[in-house]
Amino acid sequence: MLATRYHGDRDIRVDEVPEPGLREPTDALVRVHLAGICGSDLHFYRAGSSLGFAPPERVGHEFVGEVLEVGADVRSVRPGQAVVSSPSIADGTCEMCRERLYYACERGLGFFGYSGGFWHYGGPVEGGQSELVRVPFADYTLVAVPEELADPERRPALVGIIDVMGTGWHGADAAGVAPGDDVLVIGDGAVGLCAAHAAVARGAERVILAGHHADRLAIGRRLGATDVVESRDPAEVGELVRGLTGGHGARVVIASVSGDAPLATAHAGVRAGGVISCIGLDQAVGAPPGVDWMDQFLRNLTITGGLVPGRRNVPHLMELLAKGAIDPTPVFTHRLPLARAADGYRLMDERAEGVVKVVLDPSA
Amino acid sequence: MLATRYHGDRDIRVDEVPEPGLREPTDALVRVHLAGICGSDLHFYRAGSSLGFAPPERVGHEFVGEVLEVGADVRSVRPGQAVVSSPSIADGTCEMCRERLYYACERGLGFFGYSGGFWHYGGPVEGGQSELVRVPFADYTLVAVPEELADPERRPALVGIIDVMGTGWHGADAAGVAPGDDVLVIGDGAVGLCAAHAAVARGAERVILAGHHADRLAIGRRLGATDVVESRDPAEVGELVRGLTGGHGARVVIASVSGDAPLATAHAGVRAGGVISCIGLDQAVGAPPGVDWMDQFLRNLTITGGLVPGRRNVPHLMELLAKGAIDPTPVFTHRLPLARAADGYRLMDERAEGVVKVVLDPSA
Repeated sequence: MLATRYHGDRDIRVDEVPEPGLREPTDALVRVHLAGICGSDLHFYRAGSSLGFAPPERVGHEFVGEVLEVGADVRSVRPGQAVVSSPSIADGTCEMCRERLYYACERGLGFFGYSGGFWHYGGPVEGGQSELVRVPFADYTLVAVPEELADPERRPALVGIIDVMGTGWHGADAAGVAPGDDVLVIGDGAVGLCAAHAAVARGAERVILAGHHADRLAIGRRLGATDVVESRDPAEVGELVRGLTGGHGARVVIASVSGDAPLATAHAGVRAGGVISCIGLDQAVGAPPGVDWMDQFLRNLTITGGLVPGRRNVPHLMELLAKGAIDPTPVFTHRLPLARAADGYRLMDERAEGVVKVVLDPSA
Repeated sequence: MLATRYHGDRDIRVDEVPEPGLREPTDALVRVHLAGICGSDLHFYRAGSSLGFAPPERVGHEFVGEVLEVGADVRSVRPGQAVVSSPSIADGTCEMCRERLYYACERGLGFFGYSGGFWHYGGPVEGGQSELVRVPFADYTLVAVPEELADPERRPALVGIIDVMGTGWHGADAAGVAPGDDVLVIGDGAVGLCAAHAAVARGAERVILAGHHADRLAIGRRLGATDVVESRDPAEVGELVRGLTGGHGARVVIASVSGDAPLATAHAGVRAGGVISCIGLDQAVGAPPGVDWMDQFLRNLTITGGLVPGRRNVPHLMELLAKGAIDPTPVFTHRLPLARAADGYRLMDERAEGVVKVVLDPSA
């Protein structure tokens, strides 16, 4: 079968590999219908060699597919069922998982030495950008798709709720975005767009999206952003945000990218007593947030966010998708055959105009 | 009258100064019965010259006293009434104050260039370590003392609720400490001790106090800490905390001191998905928190806390004091005549054994 593998920095290939089978009684075997390339995949694409990747390594953690076979202990999914993946792997039964702290699963499969398990990043798990995938801890890691979302047309949306929407929702959820809130979202990548969409779906009154790509900001408007601003200048964005929010700034800022400039923008736009929710994986792999500690202290700001909390949001987002309250489909700008995965990575890496997120189709 | 003034770094004097009078219709004039020296006062004591202090400058923001006279617009206090100060000055009526974001008062009197007003730090306000003090925005800045706390013996406790207990409570409140929680408090100064006391009063099940002074840790036990650890070693404290909390760490860490080592201890002791609440003023004046951003991201930690939120907690803490639910009196180890204020600063600066917090008595 075909599977996408990392062979070195900026060297992604689709290789013929042996078909997987069940190994553990908690495994499931899934035929992949559609798999996403995640913005987080660009981190290993660009610098996997410095992240502990050992080529050739299977990749991909966002997919929708059909269960072919399950191990003896699997209870929640059955062969023939349509499923989506969780963005990370956890056993679902330990004390941490029972508290929905899936990223801290005691039997997780490794992620930068932490116990929570991601699909790759040096772990022993096979990725989902492939024709078939073995799924560990299937009761946790897979979520069954309801009948009303069975139409193949909904597959991109289903891929979207796993990680990009899961992460955007997490950013809003960690900050407690509630009806009536003012929210500033920094960054117009797929996660930023989904964070704006999440804030809208949670009832925020004003959702201001700051980015620097007109085409992406236009998608942000389609996803419900009430205002967009094309600027990287913290002072300019801060002034605009204060002007739109009665002079005091937004109670919540969701920073989908990390580093000094995005955080300076966050400080410029956030209201006293507010929250800066940091959800960009770039924070963990090289761009720590440039928090202004004097401002954080004197204005009582809260810094929160972090890694997408695994399965936590997936069932809820699937419900919202089924009833039409969310739809992240607009972030998918390109659909390629699985065999062209390398082109997909290249398109996303180059951030060409009109490219946001690519899905790979093994059947095409 | 006598008033404590900053004349330069480590040069505190009690000077004869003119008696103050009302200036604004929102002012009150207060005769001070007892005034605290705050841990935060040590910052200007040690380095006021680098904080914009212009000698000679009046100081003191924690006091209990009696109202002598009020301006025409003052409604909530009257002459003859016993009152405590708020730890900062705000008008109490602007949009920020109505949302209880007093540190961001639009008519605040300045604090490092921020709008919220502290009692000194370069502002135009006269301090309360004096015989008499003019109090701006008295309706906000003063809180009347109820009859059941009128006994002069309760004055140290009343001074205690203003800032040290107000800050400790804020640390616990920002982190949402609730019944059943496990809490680690880092630092055994007056604020750390009060943070532990606050966590106990809010119903935390286990409150672990980490410090490095046996005498202060003993006070922590009197204030309700269930466990104390005398160590500055993050790994050692982390192991102890995990051992006491079922292996996963404390949901809340309150860091009463900032910098690299305290934050390393916080990361070592905090549970995944937990909160690190930073309430040490040292953060704002030179020791930014050494946050481990990889850990913050991958374990979804929240960083919160900040400057004591002015009057916000004072009325509630007074109620708790009146009904015996809290009593910060044990943090006051020394009581000196106002004329000996310089000795009080020196004692606190030197952290001599047995010294935690000093109160000054203008009538002695």
